[in-house]
Amino acid sequence: MAIDRTAVGVIGLGAMGSALAGALLDRGHPVTVWNRTPEKAAALAERGARVAAAPEQAIEAGPLVVACVLDDDALHAAVDPAAAALAGRTLVNFTSASPEQARANGDWARRHGAEHLDGAIMTTPPGVGDKGMMFLYGGSPSAFAEHRAALAALGDPLHLGEDPGLASLYDVALLGLMWSAMSGWLHGAALVGAEKQSAEEFTLLALRWLDTVAGFIRTYAPQVDAGRYPGDDATIDVQIATIGHLLHAAEERGVDTALPALLKEQMERAAARGHGRDSYAGVIEALRKADA
Amino acid sequence: MAIDRTAVGVIGLGAMGSALAGALLDRGHPVTVWNRTPEKAAALAERGARVAAAPEQAIEAGPLVVACVLDDDALHAAVDPAAAALAGRTLVNFTSASPEQARANGDWARRHGAEHLDGAIMTTPPGVGDKGMMFLYGGSPSAFAEHRAALAALGDPLHLGEDPGLASLYDVALLGLMWSAMSGWLHGAALVGAEKQSAEEFTLLALRWLDTVAGFIRTYAPQVDAGRYPGDDATIDVQIATIGHLLHAAEERGVDTALPALLKEQMERAAARGHGRDSYAGVIEALRKADA
Repeated sequence: MAIDRTAVGVIGLGAMGSALAGALLDRGHPVTVWNRTPEKAAALAERGARVAAAPEQAIEAGPLVVACVLDDDALHAAVDPAAAALAGRTLVNFTSASPEQARANGDWARRHGAEHLDGAIMTTPPGVGDKGMMFLYGGSPSAFAEHRAALAALGDPLHLGEDPGLASLYDVALLGLMWSAMSGWLHGAALVGAEKQSAEEFTLLALRWLDTVAGFIRTYAPQVDAGRYPGDDATIDVQIATIGHLLHAAEERGVDTALPALLKEQMERAAARGHGRDSYAGVIEALRKADA
Repeated sequence: MAIDRTAVGVIGLGAMGSALAGALLDRGHPVTVWNRTPEKAAALAERGARVAAAPEQAIEAGPLVVACVLDDDALHAAVDPAAAALAGRTLVNFTSASPEQARANGDWARRHGAEHLDGAIMTTPPGVGDKGMMFLYGGSPSAFAEHRAALAALGDPLHLGEDPGLASLYDVALLGLMWSAMSGWLHGAALVGAEKQSAEEFTLLALRWLDTVAGFIRTYAPQVDAGRYPGDDATIDVQIATIGHLLHAAEERGVDTALPALLKEQMERAAARGHGRDSYAGVIEALRKADA
């Protein structure tokens, strides 16, 4: 098996940037790192990274430049003065940005003769380098094909399409799912915890249950695409009745009711729009303001 | 392998009660069914069920009685007049009830010389009979041991403890997780759908991502039990910044912002209580009203 040894420049050495550089070093890539405050490069230098004195040096180190800094302003503060060096190279930007900013960055890179991919890292820094973790990319298909092997050092690279805005759009959509699921889990842990049940015991059941919920989601996805939500298994009307038990149980135990109250309100809004006998997937009709 | 052929009485033939009776018939149990309106028994009679003219006949059909009716009032309307027949038998009640109602039903059954289990079915009617589906029970450990083999015809039987209130408490806690996760998923589907991305494509990534999220939850569960939430991987403060991107992306696309706004508000409340540098598990501190 041929091992990819593309030289990579890494701009930004926060927790995530350092994890990216470390994963590339682990797979034998020559890595040149730059950070606004150079102290953060010390640990990576010990592992074999070259430390650049300026962003330009990191960019010139190879055909692939990976950036992961605080925000879009910090990105441009670093790369704008060195933009000329980007010509003929690929800039992969993991800096959090809106889809609109990602598209603007794609235009900016093109103006400087560079290829551009906007990336979203679907794990925490300790998960970087694990092939099971999703790394989402939007932008130049040819740049993705060229650097796929090097990007595989970081995780499982998935190309969403030519639009650079897609990675950050999927990123926030998936993070929203994460926060919702984790808050629902914490709410349940607080509820059973009020009766001296341990979170670890509850979590064993919760994770098994999430597998069952994943099955519901798999069933409902084509319903969302079709805009028809047959409620053969469980209707929104029935679930509006059931969530009353959750609200009551939370109130009785001094657990915050804002989350279940909102979920109930969404179901009631969907029912008011004629989806009471539909499956839970019909709740999406209550989430689209444009339909109001 | 010895096959359990306990005779079972089933009271209530809504979608769920009919599924329970059907799964028992499929595994060779003699089943006697009763429903307030007898028409619903016809399909089960064709599959071999005996149809009782009154609840008492269903109770007297064997040592195990399974009830699944609309609510606690409907349960007592059916079984109270036949309470004497329950002596020496086990009543398994799947009717939705609060933990307090389940405890009262345990006392009621004991007064009539019966054993009692309160049950929660963690699947929809089509999932009944699948050994992967969780059926939660609280109440008499000896009744659970005696009827475990028969209950295994319905799904995977899990005994939570002697307190009959535990099954319904876990039930609403797990349903809260389900509604939260499904609403988070629908919100993400609405967001990417606004850019013509299909829900099915999004769901492929969402379900992989849920596996990653399950890993976070596994990490955070012992933090909840310890009441200490080290934020080594990602802090609440960082996530408060990130969820701003989600709110902005939703606003721009005409997608409802109530759910992400609530999640952000919970994070901010946890941060205000000193958990900004903690992991997301610290959000539980914002959910316990008693701490306010």
